[in-house]
This record gives sequence, C-alpha cells and structure tokens, in this order.
Amino acid sequence: MIILGIDPAIRTSGYGVIECSEKGEIKVLDCGVIVNKPKMLHTECLRRIAGGVAELLETYKIDCAAIEEPFVGKNSKTAIILGMARGAFLAKLAENDIPVYSYSARVAKKAAVGNGSAEKEQVALMMAAQLGIEVENILLDATDALAIAMCHAQRALHYEIGDLLSSKI
Amino acid sequence: MIILGIDPAIRTSGYGVIECSEKGEIKVLDCGVIVNKPKMLHTECLRRIAGGVAELLETYKIDCAAIEEPFVGKNSKTAIILGMARGAFLAKLAENDIPVYSYSARVAKKAAVGNGSAEKEQVALMMAAQLGIEVENILLDATDALAIAMCHAQRALHYEIGDLLSSKI
Repeated sequence: MIILGIDPAIRTSGYGVIECSEKGEIKVLDCGVIVNKPKMLHTECLRRIAGGVAELLETYKIDCAAIEEPFVGKNSKTAIILGMARGAFLAKLAENDIPVYSYSARVAKKAAVGNGSAEKEQVALMMAAQLGIEVENILLDATDALAIAMCHAQRALHYEIGDLLSSKI
Repeated sequence: MIILGIDPAIRTSGYGVIECSEKGEIKVLDCGVIVNKPKMLHTECLRRIAGGVAELLETYKIDCAAIEEPFVGKNSKTAIILGMARGAFLAKLAENDIPVYSYSARVAKKAAVGNGSAEKEQVALMMAAQLGIEVENILLDATDALAIAMCHAQRALHYEIGDLLSSKI
C-alpha cells in the first residue's frame, strides 16, 4: 500500500510518500515541500498545490492519503487561508478517487513517534531512526507529513475497518 | 467579457455567468447552485465543486471570475470548512488560468443593487429587475453569485486597471 502524507499550508506544505508492506515494513519513496513565495497570489499558491498533488499521483501509484487535521486557533482569517490550502489538496485527491483520512497532529505524533506532544525536531529524529533516512536535508514540514503517513499505515495494519472509516473525510 | 460569479460554501454554492458588452449591456448566460447533501464527505463535496467549475469552464468561454470574500466570523472551525470550499473553487480556476477577483458581500451588494446591507431577497429582486430574469425559480445563493459577477462587470467597465488589480487574489 502506498500512502501520501500531507501537512497542508498555503506557503509551505509538507508531503511524504511511503510504501507499507502487509508485514508492516515501511519504505520512504519520496518526501519534500511545496513552497510558495510570500507575495504570491493565493490563486497561484493553490494552483501550485493542486499541480504538486497531480505530479505525485502521476509518479507513484498512491492508494490513499492521510492529511493533518487543521489546528483550530482563534484567528478565523488564518483558518480560512489554511482551509483554502486544505481544500486544494482534498479536491485534487478526490478528483482522482484517492480516499483521504484525517488525523490530528497529536494522534499522528503519538502513532509515529510514541509522543503526542513531540516537537517537530523530535519527530524528525524519530522518523530518521525508523525510516533510515537522513533528516538533515529534509524540511520539518516534510517529516511531519511522513509522520501522518506513518500514522495511517499503522492504523491500516492494526485497526478494524470501522475505526479507520471514522477518520475518512 | 464573460464573468463567472461565485458565492462559495461547502454545502450550497451559488454561481452565475454573465456576459458584459463594452457598452455595459449585461446578459445572464447561466446561474444555479452546487448542492452537496448534509452527510456527504468533505472530499466528495470538494470533488463536486471542482467538477462543477470544470463543467462551467467547458460550457462558457469564461474570461474571469469574481468570488465573494468570506465573512470572517468568530468560529474558526466553520472558517476552515468555508476556506476549503473556496480553495477548491480557486484551485480549479487557477489551474485553468482564469483570473479571480474577490469582493466582500457589502461591496458586491453596493455595486449591484446600490445598498451594501441589502437582504438576499432584495438582491434577488434587484437582480431580476436589472437582468430581466425570473427569480422565483432561482435560489438566493445564485442571485448572490450574480451580484458578485455584476459587481466585477461594473468595476471592469469603470475602474482603472490598478484599482481592479487590488481585488485580484
């Protein structure tokens, strides 16, 4: 099973693609970030996000995606912009019939590194140890996206289908 | 010039397509709503939104789009969902190189019916009078979308290009 993990944002979104065997062996196929410059129009940012997803879908035979649940802060204006980035990712995945599951950062970190309140740096180090990747050259948003993908892999391996479906969005 | 007006939301989005001549004559080519059932998954809602935009772009030679600026309430959770719908619209428009302009409901109503705080019903009646359409069979979200398109038409006719660009998103 090939899983695309996503940590969405309008300016820097992380993505990670992992392959998970039935025995639970996990291999990182790709990870990186989609970066949009600060002054770029929102429409252009969203076009680049949708284009990035399309490219990943063309390159890998992705079976499903896992996305970080947005942190609901108090600032509605920020929330709308985060929602826009999330919407561009989800629409492109849905257009391509890729099922998407959503996990809070806490749940993802707990599943991936055993600690729900781990800092980004800790997540990166644990990802490196578990996946045998060198994290020095990988942006933290990308390791967060790998953690989301790892979280879904673990659930897909160990959870009942009904429990999985409750995370489907 | 053919303008697509959009009043975006996850469950019921309004759209209106108008043609505006250089003399300012306006003709309604189409208007309606994209309705997503209450229990539909968000991904499916966004797929239907993106699909609806794609269909409109195939049917009409749309030059630009005008979208209602989200009302920033206090509820960040609602804001994220509204942002997702907006993101799906914008990403699909951007993928097709359609420039998009954003106007607050107040600015759109003021431009379209002369009153920034008009109720939806008033907007519908004024749209009917100005555009020669029968509003009885048109949902209010669609007449709101027509008002947004009308607003952009008026600005495109009467404003300097620099002023127009400030609304581009």
